[in-house]
Amino acid sequence: MKLLRVGTAGAERPALLDEDGTLRDLSALVDDVDGGLLADESALDRIRAALGAGVLPALDATGLRVGPPVGRIGKVVCIGLNYHDHAAENGAAIPAEPVVFFKAADTVVGPNDTVLVPRRSVKTDWEVELAIVIGRTARYLESDEQAMAHVAGYALSHDVSEREWQIERGGTWDKGKNCETFNPLGPWLVTADEVPDPQALSLKLWVNGELKQNGSTVDQIFPVAEVVRYVSQFMTLYPGDIINTGTPAGVAMGQPEPKPYLRAGDVVELEIEGLGRQRQELKDA
Amino acid sequence: MKLLRVGTAGAERPALLDEDGTLRDLSALVDDVDGGLLADESALDRIRAALGAGVLPALDATGLRVGPPVGRIGKVVCIGLNYHDHAAENGAAIPAEPVVFFKAADTVVGPNDTVLVPRRSVKTDWEVELAIVIGRTARYLESDEQAMAHVAGYALSHDVSEREWQIERGGTWDKGKNCETFNPLGPWLVTADEVPDPQALSLKLWVNGELKQNGSTVDQIFPVAEVVRYVSQFMTLYPGDIINTGTPAGVAMGQPEPKPYLRAGDVVELEIEGLGRQRQELKDA
Repeated sequence: MKLLRVGTAGAERPALLDEDGTLRDLSALVDDVDGGLLADESALDRIRAALGAGVLPALDATGLRVGPPVGRIGKVVCIGLNYHDHAAENGAAIPAEPVVFFKAADTVVGPNDTVLVPRRSVKTDWEVELAIVIGRTARYLESDEQAMAHVAGYALSHDVSEREWQIERGGTWDKGKNCETFNPLGPWLVTADEVPDPQALSLKLWVNGELKQNGSTVDQIFPVAEVVRYVSQFMTLYPGDIINTGTPAGVAMGQPEPKPYLRAGDVVELEIEGLGRQRQELKDA
Repeated sequence: MKLLRVGTAGAERPALLDEDGTLRDLSALVDDVDGGLLADESALDRIRAALGAGVLPALDATGLRVGPPVGRIGKVVCIGLNYHDHAAENGAAIPAEPVVFFKAADTVVGPNDTVLVPRRSVKTDWEVELAIVIGRTARYLESDEQAMAHVAGYALSHDVSEREWQIERGGTWDKGKNCETFNPLGPWLVTADEVPDPQALSLKLWVNGELKQNGSTVDQIFPVAEVVRYVSQFMTLYPGDIINTGTPAGVAMGQPEPKPYLRAGDVVELEIEGLGRQRQELKDA
């Protein structure tokens, strides 16, 4: 299923995109698409049954904003340098184990919401990423199979990054990863049953119509199952938590000088096979 | 005022500790002590008026668990190496600007809750810290005065840390800072009006009755106002967000070998002048 949340920011209603591309209202069945729903197999079964029975009311999509596909996100864990080609473009060694950092959940916005270039930023950069959405509480997982059983689904994620603040201002990367609006997510949460191989998805990103990133999750150094298993050794993952799994080559930082960092007026579009498309206009904060 | 939350985890009720040490129930006045309350001056005024009028019902504290003093925490920002003596004991240079990292809000527990030593951990360490509680949405603050006007109050915080995972496992510090139960907070949120000088507070921490940390916030490299102003340049701070402002010298990592890292059965007690006291028993995860 493709689950999503539509409406004004902070007041989204739960919805579903059916196989015909019709938007269906879920608000009579569930309060929200959030960790509570994702951990509740019987609620998900009720949605499946209602969809199969053809009783979900259609929603007029005209002019409707799409929000992030998960509400009440607890935390956003991020994996850095997780594609061979991206590590190479940064001149970074292949990590021996996953690099972990955080984005605050309050950076998450809808897939087509405005992205703000922070004040005094000179190196705002793009990163198309596959996001994992956690469906069950995960502690100390022991196998890939166990890890995959804790994944509710996947979403398209934009890990917007300020490179000067990430790298040149001391301390950890978090300083350049947590600016307001820096994590567009969605449009959909696609349930894991509809993504049979998360390691065979193409990822693309364009800036002002020009293709900048064109990768595949087959190039991930640490695949989805390994990432979930690994992270669960260090922290507890809860339903509705997000893991951004890293970006392929082609970010601004990896290009020759003058590097084409983002500015107000730029338009970024991104896409992952089967997970939909985003479009953001950049504005000054 | 000393605001707190009492009751079983996840179902705490809002309360207040009055000047006589009597616990007062706030649940007829407000839903919770959270960002919503802290941003609502008129609700805080109603509490003050009810307290002054002597109409707040007393609560029997016997056997009542104390929860974290803030509910629905959005994010926990942490400042690293922020005391001269702690930087020195780590052999670290004095940072030119604040070092920023994150703890997930789901690591926050009550001040006397059990702290879990993670599986396979060999370097679980303690850190007594002054926590700032944000009261108003803060973006790009320009002065110390503006920064202080965004602080709702202060709390005692324990930034439990796994040093091997923080430092020796690649990537950022976040890997060793986000284990389950790693941020006891409270007992109280003391409103800013009752902490006239946050740079003159003594901090103490004992392990099994032995004094290990004995510092003062006067030794902070970046004081409270500077920390809030600085962080607001990189991210938006929301009511109910927490900033842990760093720890003074005396952590296990800074001691001679064999370093006395925490194990199941150890008892940690900590205290900040005017902000109350915590006591945690360590258990295996």
